[in-house]
Amino acid sequence: MISYEIRQGEEKDIPDLMALIRELAEFEKAPEKVANSEALLMRDWKEHRAFDFLVAESEGKVVGISLYYPRYSTWNGRCYYLEDLYVKPEMRGMGAGKALLLATVEEAKKAGAGRLDWQVLDWNESAVRFYESLGTHIEKEWWNCKLVI
Amino acid sequence: MISYEIRQGEEKDIPDLMALIRELAEFEKAPEKVANSEALLMRDWKEHRAFDFLVAESEGKVVGISLYYPRYSTWNGRCYYLEDLYVKPEMRGMGAGKALLLATVEEAKKAGAGRLDWQVLDWNESAVRFYESLGTHIEKEWWNCKLVI
Repeated sequence: MISYEIRQGEEKDIPDLMALIRELAEFEKAPEKVANSEALLMRDWKEHRAFDFLVAESEGKVVGISLYYPRYSTWNGRCYYLEDLYVKPEMRGMGAGKALLLATVEEAKKAGAGRLDWQVLDWNESAVRFYESLGTHIEKEWWNCKLVI
Repeated sequence: MISYEIRQGEEKDIPDLMALIRELAEFEKAPEKVANSEALLMRDWKEHRAFDFLVAESEGKVVGISLYYPRYSTWNGRCYYLEDLYVKPEMRGMGAGKALLLATVEEAKKAGAGRLDWQVLDWNESAVRFYESLGTHIEKEWWNCKLVI
């Protein structure tokens, strides 16, 4: 049986983090949209503290990631936002995604957040079922607006 | 003609900020979902620096708000998120919403963000038209996931 552990991301993990962000973008059918780089990711994490991340490690390799940061709900106060959750295909079905999600929930709780938010693509049925099985409330009536500035 | 000015939110504005957050929730058909309070809003702004805000002021009264905070895109790096944008009904049609949005863009630029993100309800046609007129890209394929923790 393949085992894994969930741990806090470290500086040495940034190249793997960038690689898995790219893999996730491919799965989301938008690889051309990734304008980020290892150098910028390192700067934004280390200097700007713009996010933090967890990794799932198996046999010395990073096989999954969770990337998150605080957000604010004017209705419910301090929350956490899970920007990316990804597990490599060969490691799926062994609970690593759930373990990463639950570890992110613990980080959010430690920071005083009362809710964890994220988004799912409307065609990703298996992810929707997985999230609903955890008690996640899914809202379908909001559209994302993005303005390049 | 009624005039207004856009300025940074201050401690004295917190009661008006909370009142306008409630008005917006009523417009969004979800007034019962507002669990926040003036005291919590003050603490989260002053102590936790969880968000910042701008106000539109007319004849000594707060008639509009913009509430925002940094977020992170793994594809595009540092962004800003506009959580709430609201102008009181009697002040609409005079550019206050656009002025608040553009002032928020300036705050985001100053902080090194390359994009401003927010959400719009799928039935809010006038807002969608307004945002599109500014060059906003609207994505309809993401659903919001919320897990109370």
